[in-house]
Amino acid sequence: MASTIDDSNLPKTHKACVYDKPGSCSIAIRHVETPEPGPGEVLVRLTHSGVCHSDYGIMMNTWAHLPAPTEEGQVGGHEGVGFVAKLGDGSERAGVKVGDRVGIKWVSAACLACPPCLEGMDGVCFNQKISGYFTPGTFQQYAIGPANYVTPVPDSLPGDLAAPMLCAGVTTYAALKKSGANSGHWVVIAGAGGGLGTVAVSLGAKAMGYRVIGIDTLSKKDVILDSGAEHFIDVMAYDDDGIANRVRELTGHGAKAVIVCTQSNEAYGQALGMLGFGGIVVCVGMPEGDPKPIARSYPAAMVAKQSSIVGSAVGNRREAAEVLDFATRGLVKFPVKTVGMDELQSVFEGMAKGEIRGRVVLDLSK
Amino acid sequence: MASTIDDSNLPKTHKACVYDKPGSCSIAIRHVETPEPGPGEVLVRLTHSGVCHSDYGIMMNTWAHLPAPTEEGQVGGHEGVGFVAKLGDGSERAGVKVGDRVGIKWVSAACLACPPCLEGMDGVCFNQKISGYFTPGTFQQYAIGPANYVTPVPDSLPGDLAAPMLCAGVTTYAALKKSGANSGHWVVIAGAGGGLGTVAVSLGAKAMGYRVIGIDTLSKKDVILDSGAEHFIDVMAYDDDGIANRVRELTGHGAKAVIVCTQSNEAYGQALGMLGFGGIVVCVGMPEGDPKPIARSYPAAMVAKQSSIVGSAVGNRREAAEVLDFATRGLVKFPVKTVGMDELQSVFEGMAKGEIRGRVVLDLSK
Amino acid sequence: MASTIDDSNLPKTHKACVYDKPGSCSIAIRHVETPEPGPGEVLVRLTHSGVCHSDYGIMMNTWAHLPAPTEEGQVGGHEGVGFVAKLGDGSERAGVKVGDRVGIKWVSAACLACPPCLEGMDGVCFNQKISGYFTPGTFQQYAIGPANYVTPVPDSLPGDLAAPMLCAGVTTYAALKKSGANSGHWVVIAGAGGGLGTVAVSLGAKAMGYRVIGIDTLSKKDVILDSGAEHFIDVMAYDDDGIANRVRELTGHGAKAVIVCTQSNEAYGQALGMLGFGGIVVCVGMPEGDPKPIARSYPAAMVAKQSSIVGSAVGNRREAAEVLDFATRGLVKFPVKTVGMDELQSVFEGMAKGEIRGRVVLDLSK
Amino acid sequence: MASTIDDSNLPKTHKACVYDKPGSCSIAIRHVETPEPGPGEVLVRLTHSGVCHSDYGIMMNTWAHLPAPTEEGQVGGHEGVGFVAKLGDGSERAGVKVGDRVGIKWVSAACLACPPCLEGMDGVCFNQKISGYFTPGTFQQYAIGPANYVTPVPDSLPGDLAAPMLCAGVTTYAALKKSGANSGHWVVIAGAGGGLGTVAVSLGAKAMGYRVIGIDTLSKKDVILDSGAEHFIDVMAYDDDGIANRVRELTGHGAKAVIVCTQSNEAYGQALGMLGFGGIVVCVGMPEGDPKPIARSYPAAMVAKQSSIVGSAVGNRREAAEVLDFATRGLVKFPVKTVGMDELQSVFEGMAKGEIRGRVVLDLSK
Repeated sequence: MASTIDDSNLPKTHKACVYDKPGSCSIAIRHVETPEPGPGEVLVRLTHSGVCHSDYGIMMNTWAHLPAPTEEGQVGGHEGVGFVAKLGDGSERAGVKVGDRVGIKWVSAACLACPPCLEGMDGVCFNQKISGYFTPGTFQQYAIGPANYVTPVPDSLPGDLAAPMLCAGVTTYAALKKSGANSGHWVVIAGAGGGLGTVAVSLGAKAMGYRVIGIDTLSKKDVILDSGAEHFIDVMAYDDDGIANRVRELTGHGAKAVIVCTQSNEAYGQALGMLGFGGIVVCVGMPEGDPKPIARSYPAAMVAKQSSIVGSAVGNRREAAEVLDFATRGLVKFPVKTVGMDELQSVFEGMAKGEIRGRVVLDLSK
Repeated sequence: MASTIDDSNLPKTHKACVYDKPGSCSIAIRHVETPEPGPGEVLVRLTHSGVCHSDYGIMMNTWAHLPAPTEEGQVGGHEGVGFVAKLGDGSERAGVKVGDRVGIKWVSAACLACPPCLEGMDGVCFNQKISGYFTPGTFQQYAIGPANYVTPVPDSLPGDLAAPMLCAGVTTYAALKKSGANSGHWVVIAGAGGGLGTVAVSLGAKAMGYRVIGIDTLSKKDVILDSGAEHFIDVMAYDDDGIANRVRELTGHGAKAVIVCTQSNEAYGQALGMLGFGGIVVCVGMPEGDPKPIARSYPAAMVAKQSSIVGSAVGNRREAAEVLDFATRGLVKFPVKTVGMDELQSVFEGMAKGEIRGRVVLDLSK
Repeated sequence: MASTIDDSNLPKTHKACVYDKPGSCSIAIRHVETPEPGPGEVLVRLTHSGVCHSDYGIMMNTWAHLPAPTEEGQVGGHEGVGFVAKLGDGSERAGVKVGDRVGIKWVSAACLACPPCLEGMDGVCFNQKISGYFTPGTFQQYAIGPANYVTPVPDSLPGDLAAPMLCAGVTTYAALKKSGANSGHWVVIAGAGGGLGTVAVSLGAKAMGYRVIGIDTLSKKDVILDSGAEHFIDVMAYDDDGIANRVRELTGHGAKAVIVCTQSNEAYGQALGMLGFGGIVVCVGMPEGDPKPIARSYPAAMVAKQSSIVGSAVGNRREAAEVLDFATRGLVKFPVKTVGMDELQSVFEGMAKGEIRGRVVLDLSK
Repeated sequence: MASTIDDSNLPKTHKACVYDKPGSCSIAIRHVETPEPGPGEVLVRLTHSGVCHSDYGIMMNTWAHLPAPTEEGQVGGHEGVGFVAKLGDGSERAGVKVGDRVGIKWVSAACLACPPCLEGMDGVCFNQKISGYFTPGTFQQYAIGPANYVTPVPDSLPGDLAAPMLCAGVTTYAALKKSGANSGHWVVIAGAGGGLGTVAVSLGAKAMGYRVIGIDTLSKKDVILDSGAEHFIDVMAYDDDGIANRVRELTGHGAKAVIVCTQSNEAYGQALGMLGFGGIVVCVGMPEGDPKPIARSYPAAMVAKQSSIVGSAVGNRREAAEVLDFATRGLVKFPVKTVGMDELQSVFEGMAKGEIRGRVVLDLSK
């Protein structure tokens, strides 16, 4: 049987935001049963959850990469921060204790035993569970996670800054690392003003020592430069070759890496032209609709410049720990707005209209 | 002034195969002036030269990646093996002596000082000279090369086996290394029965410890299995998904790498489907005609499997030395046919008809 | 409660070899209670267990690296192969089923959550359990292991060849990989004729494509050359500089790597002299008695040749899977002798006298 | 014959500081003949030269790593900055022009053709020439260097800040890169207040994103913290274990890397104790006198923590370019004092007494 310090403190039910009509933008606040952690699991009392565009896609059934429509009553969310409230049997072997501060990520559980897991590639675990789709997510006050897969969160990092690190942070950090760039190298962030982009700019520029060029529309110029970019390029002010030339002008021989944080097929096609010899395009944003090949991905041109393209999924547990450490040291800067649980529906409505800037975080105490 | 052991042995003129009518398939045998090596250069008395499909493209002006048409009187060739006959001023600083056995490669000279050269990426040197196009090539009895850029060739390796290593060998070896595969990993060679393909199969299987699957048409099955492949897949026997499924069947989770040695856009599109998680497609063959994006290079799919695509140009000097070492140890197996200089035109005619199998090497003493 | 396919087949007790008088060489065959797997654990019906020199050290209390004397009644052994007989609660999440063939290693359990585990460095897991010391080992017919940490064993690999891969195999393979050597590089195995050494020689030469030089006493020459070494050096025929000179003679510029598989401080000191520029000494054998610094580890000399020294502990799960794959393909060759459980004491007595050659494996059905 | 823009501007003789009595601390200012650049060489009009402790050792014949005593009349120096004044034959192939700003390094010439050079390991080039020992050095107004080996120096970087980058800068930068540490990792600099140490601290902390702990005597505390270290440890305030414990306290699990910038055998022995799992000691400082093994380099302990030791020689040309770029961006901070040529002897006298702090640079116009 599961053990805990003081079982009597745990509620029978707790507050959750559920998708009551998947396929439409509708959230119901319900009280749901607080679950028991199974063997190897822990129950987490959540304080904050980030709200990500992928949650919106799951709610609306437009996230093309999932096997089946979202079920009625699903609790979404995958950027959850809280405290361990109860230990399932055997979960002490992972070194977790009641009261530890931990996070739940997009991949809420990985098997840690399949070939990708043995290579530290949690994001492509053959048996992964997506939080807020396969398992009840983090838009609620209590959630379950595997003891060996929840992410330790430093006590001194405020919850609303920690939550976005568990998806936006680790995803962009993993992508920046996949670029193979070293400190001092030029790295372009395409879609630099978005939710992923601002995190990528600040991680690259402040934490990792890259020289960052941010590309986006003019309205994002200030937030991009504030986040640490040395240069801003207005994507609307040039044609594709013009952007490539501007990057070459700023960098000398072209960029070492372009991290594509937008969902735009055009951005992918532009990216290859910005590279110097031996450069790399890292795919993060996933275009929706019918898939299109990356424009300009010509074999002969890639050979001639020894260019690379690489897809980067959500990072692994080590990268999650590292990005939380950078955030705790104040090196990750991005716009964040904290709201109560009953505002989630309006947050999604704002997302649909493209009105959300930076990251919104739910305060789960409200 | 240049120094040599015994200048009097050097001829005033020597025999060369020249493109007398670039744009058409025509070779004239001429006697040309034997040049003096400049500062930092050496004169090489050549014994053998491989004949590569790129030579044909240069002669015919169909190699799209060059800046201008080939000049009348150009001597082609870029897989030359011979002995240092004379040292230019200062060339002793590179440690070369008269009598040393050396080779001349596709990149006949790299500056060794530009940014790519500082990273060991000779193939994308900003100041590179292409042998047989920018500089008189290896279809002749004497040619010039930089003392610090000619490649030492082991004495015990027969010249007709050494010559193809200087382009086909180093190119495929560099591509295999770029794959990041380790010994024991599954590597697919697309176009496994061609001039590059057979070298790639044997290098991968015999020298580097990969498990190799070769893909080509049925007529190439025997040469592919003889070269060391564990499995052969008949490219005509399946549709694209069928080939991918067959690779998955043979490998368990899909291939770690696919090396595309053909010039076929279809092969590139097929390649992505054969990969397991974290797999990589290495571009070697350069499709001619209007460039086309790599089919199936969808960002979302590449993220989902953490796939990569990378372009690999001709290898560097270290890779040339290593591949010659493997060949000397008998680990590179491929069909080779040695002919005299006056047969070059008929070799090119055979190439045009697709009748050449494996590598043809000129014996430059005849 | 734990689930199984047919609980009634499981015995209440089973046969085990126990250390009945730790500190002396004494083994008692006893019937011990067959345990229930806890949450996340599996019960394994073992068929074979290798016998390693470390087991002898644990029995004799001479293994200096452990915190406390071995307890009376401890079951030793850490190279166990068998079949999953019963699943503990939640262990299905690791993808293991009853009947799966699996192995138990030196590190019988790692937490998979501490910093080293997040980097795939199981061997230095902060919470690791040593099989046959912290937990009942593999010298018995049933043992417990974590579902996500037992190693899948291919069905076609005979048990007495599989067992030694789980310690000797993975340890030497991890060391060879740590060397950073590529196929074609010269690698010296010091102590090439011992239990670890022969495995290292064959893995290096046959599976990984290295050029291997084996060093040991003359009586080991044949087994070393049979295992795949290109050259043998008789350690007694030269002084330290003589060995280094001999290696240089055979390799040209010195070895890329020396893997020290013996427990000899002298071998460590000799190793540095054999290296070429940028070479590396990999520490595997752990000298007993008072620790001594590695002779010749002079900072100035290491700077001048850019040499490295690195310690390599037992490999991780990925390396275990890979080495089993190589063994299944017949690429690991070493002398093995299979005996019954009641011969374990005499095996240890032989070890004490230095009479054991290659690996002894217990057939646990007898 | 060598070509130049305006040969008439070049002097017949120029001012040089020569070792007139090698073995003692004595400098003579002489006018020496201005040399002609040979084939592939350039003549550099120098404006500044750093003064390094190795120069002192060469002058005094105490630098144990050189083959013969220094010759009377030798011009020392190996951190020279200036402008190309004349091109030797064929040197245009390296892309250098008269008027280009370039630097001359410790390795004044590497062959770029031997095995280490092919791997980018200039520091162990088999044919390297040491500036100020094998070739006339940089304590003079004109010196010779190979066109493909002088280092481009950005125009905007003041000469007295550029000069120290060419030895102290590139050496410490290469060592920091050899550590394999990533941004956010803890790196200890032993000897953090010295000429190499302050450069290492600022490069690590400001350019590369490491978290730096500096160790030295108390008088160096301020300069270390000013250079960017997060923490200072007074080497005299603790015994060896005390320092290791303090590092562990500050870092959690121990340091990822310790860069030993001092010549102290004690510092090497302490370094191993500061490492966390998988940590590395990088050897930079070269202890003088009889060589001693690195204390605590016990094989068993290195295995148990998977520790490494690596020797790092002066960096390569790529690292030189990168460190100059960091310096140009203001990310390298260290104390520098600029003096005239006639003060060189007193600078060396100060060095002998340990009175020199940071780097002294000669203004070669005076």
